[in-house]
Amino acid sequence: MRGRVSGTFSVIHRDASCGARLGSLKTPHGEIETPIFMPVGTNATVKAMTPEDLWAVHAQIILSNTYHLYLRPGHRLVETLGGLHRFMNWSGPILTDSGGFQVFSLGELRKISEEGVKFQSHLDGSYHVLTPELSIKIQEALGADIIMCFDECPAATADYDYVSRSLEMTTRWAKRCKEAHSREGQQLFGIIQGGMHHDLRARSLNEICAIGFDGYALGGLSVGEEKEQMYGVMESCAPLMPQDAPRYIMGIGAPEDLVEAVWHGFDMFDCVMPTRNARNGMLFTSQGRINIKAKAYEEDGGPLDPACGCHVCRTYSRAYLRHLYRAGEILASQLNTYHNLYYYLDLMRRMRGAIRENRFTEFRRDFYGSQTDNHVQKKEES
Amino acid sequence: MRGRVSGTFSVIHRDASCGARLGSLKTPHGEIETPIFMPVGTNATVKAMTPEDLWAVHAQIILSNTYHLYLRPGHRLVETLGGLHRFMNWSGPILTDSGGFQVFSLGELRKISEEGVKFQSHLDGSYHVLTPELSIKIQEALGADIIMCFDECPAATADYDYVSRSLEMTTRWAKRCKEAHSREGQQLFGIIQGGMHHDLRARSLNEICAIGFDGYALGGLSVGEEKEQMYGVMESCAPLMPQDAPRYIMGIGAPEDLVEAVWHGFDMFDCVMPTRNARNGMLFTSQGRINIKAKAYEEDGGPLDPACGCHVCRTYSRAYLRHLYRAGEILASQLNTYHNLYYYLDLMRRMRGAIRENRFTEFRRDFYGSQTDNHVQKKEES
Ligand SMILES: [Zn+2]
Ligand SMILES: [Zn+2]
Repeated sequence: MRGRVSGTFSVIHRDASCGARLGSLKTPHGEIETPIFMPVGTNATVKAMTPEDLWAVHAQIILSNTYHLYLRPGHRLVETLGGLHRFMNWSGPILTDSGGFQVFSLGELRKISEEGVKFQSHLDGSYHVLTPELSIKIQEALGADIIMCFDECPAATADYDYVSRSLEMTTRWAKRCKEAHSREGQQLFGIIQGGMHHDLRARSLNEICAIGFDGYALGGLSVGEEKEQMYGVMESCAPLMPQDAPRYIMGIGAPEDLVEAVWHGFDMFDCVMPTRNARNGMLFTSQGRINIKAKAYEEDGGPLDPACGCHVCRTYSRAYLRHLYRAGEILASQLNTYHNLYYYLDLMRRMRGAIRENRFTEFRRDFYGSQTDNHVQKKEES
Repeated sequence: MRGRVSGTFSVIHRDASCGARLGSLKTPHGEIETPIFMPVGTNATVKAMTPEDLWAVHAQIILSNTYHLYLRPGHRLVETLGGLHRFMNWSGPILTDSGGFQVFSLGELRKISEEGVKFQSHLDGSYHVLTPELSIKIQEALGADIIMCFDECPAATADYDYVSRSLEMTTRWAKRCKEAHSREGQQLFGIIQGGMHHDLRARSLNEICAIGFDGYALGGLSVGEEKEQMYGVMESCAPLMPQDAPRYIMGIGAPEDLVEAVWHGFDMFDCVMPTRNARNGMLFTSQGRINIKAKAYEEDGGPLDPACGCHVCRTYSRAYLRHLYRAGEILASQLNTYHNLYYYLDLMRRMRGAIRENRFTEFRRDFYGSQTDNHVQKKEES
């Protein structure tokens, strides 16, 4: 066990109009300005992006998945080859998750006990046992700048009693994770569970914070709940969380979710949405989401998003992007992912600018006003 | 009809030891040093490569396919949006094929007559008739720097009489193509057919050259014949072809085919091999071909090809490339394609250097000596 890595996070400025805050997070691979979004690089690559592309869209930190890298190519191999940064040629900060979420998503293929989780690989059906100690060991071998505690993420359908017992085990697992962790300079974040129950969230939060970690994350969101439930958990947890540590919400979200979370005072986010949706032709723009396969763009010589400064929007027409998508071309995934990640990271940059100038509440209002697609309108109406 | 575009091609140097020659080909989008290999960009994109990547691997000219662009997104749309160069953001030279080869590859879906070819789209089964005049019209609308005559490419199994009659129709079609072509500055190349029969090749060659084109291509190679047959056609045709026009062999080939063709005095080549094989994990190296999925590379921290100066070889390990390929990651296609095209274009550059110094015969011998994979050894032994 090692103590907290001191002096890594500082709040630079608090928006006077809401909970939003501007922060700085130091890691062995560089300093991160928060709030920030972390592109997801599951298999040691952010799908369809080169590391040079990631720098070009101003990615500051990426997330990679312990479960996937443990199974293939194996954490020992990555360690032998110099660690994850060198393996994938990404010299910026990396956060790895604990593998918990993926393992619990396996459904029938896994069995939970106090010791850990026995599961079958989705690749070849082989049996494995993932424990808090092994999760830490894998993450130490991968060598990420920030690693996560191994937690249980109950299904959205789990009842109150299950969630209650589960969060207690997650607390015991968090202690074991902290005990097992020894890699110098590597930050360890605790994960708060408790489903959609505000009292359970508060209990989990108090228990996890009492153990003491370098940062704190809300887990178990974006698992199928209504947006209002998600936002309710943010609202109830934010005031209870330590002010001097980074606050991370795992697995969210849509642009409007990020705006809400930042407004409540959260600092870090990850989600497959910008990358996965890009590969499905769904693109984020300053006016909301568009589907590039739509017939409406067939002869459209204009840019994807006239308000976007990215290379794709400055170079290609909607008609060309539509053509690439329809032809099933790899370049469609490349260009669409590039734009979507640029959009997300630019949104975070604009949010940081608004916080700096104490106008985040105004920014949030303008953001909702600008979104003309149905999805966000629905939220506004509710 | 317009006359030949004058002064576009000049032979700069002839290797004293063989037929190889160094040339310069001027186009509206820049000057090309020959011999050169043209990456194939079927659907207005070289698969898995951005235009920036193409420049980085030193592509001088790319090829795109009339058949595919005619069907999707349509040549009129491309024309409306400013032509193919602008549509795909490639400001270098482009050559388009005539659509003939693709249409004849449709098998049961097409019917040939003197007028042209009636065929069904592989996309939606719709009926179309492609004629020499329409092929030229499409290629004029796309706006390539160099376009090709519409020809019949008989199957490798076609008998002597069929090939004989076919080449006569190809000659009549070539006249119609020249008659139909009017776009200023756009070069039109004739295509020589005749299968593996040297006398028919000579006949086709004389007829096509008598019409007069800006360049001359051998069609109907790399259609399943033995390498010795292919090389035999090169050998028999090269001495009969005009000295002052570019000589193009369509659809070849493997690196050793390019070396052979340059040795005989050919100047231009295209083939899907480097790009398609890259997506299948087959990579070209200074020592021959390797398959990146091989278990042997599992823990190999070394570069793909230690002798290659490309960004991929300078940056990534074989173990990482193998991991990406096995994980089905898009980045595998991106990096593998980048390397293979760099390899091909670097091979052409090294060939040009050897010709300049009158040591191409030596270069060819060394090239065969360096290839340790079975495929090329077989050729050496024969
Ligand atoms: Zn953009
Ligand atoms: Zn290379």
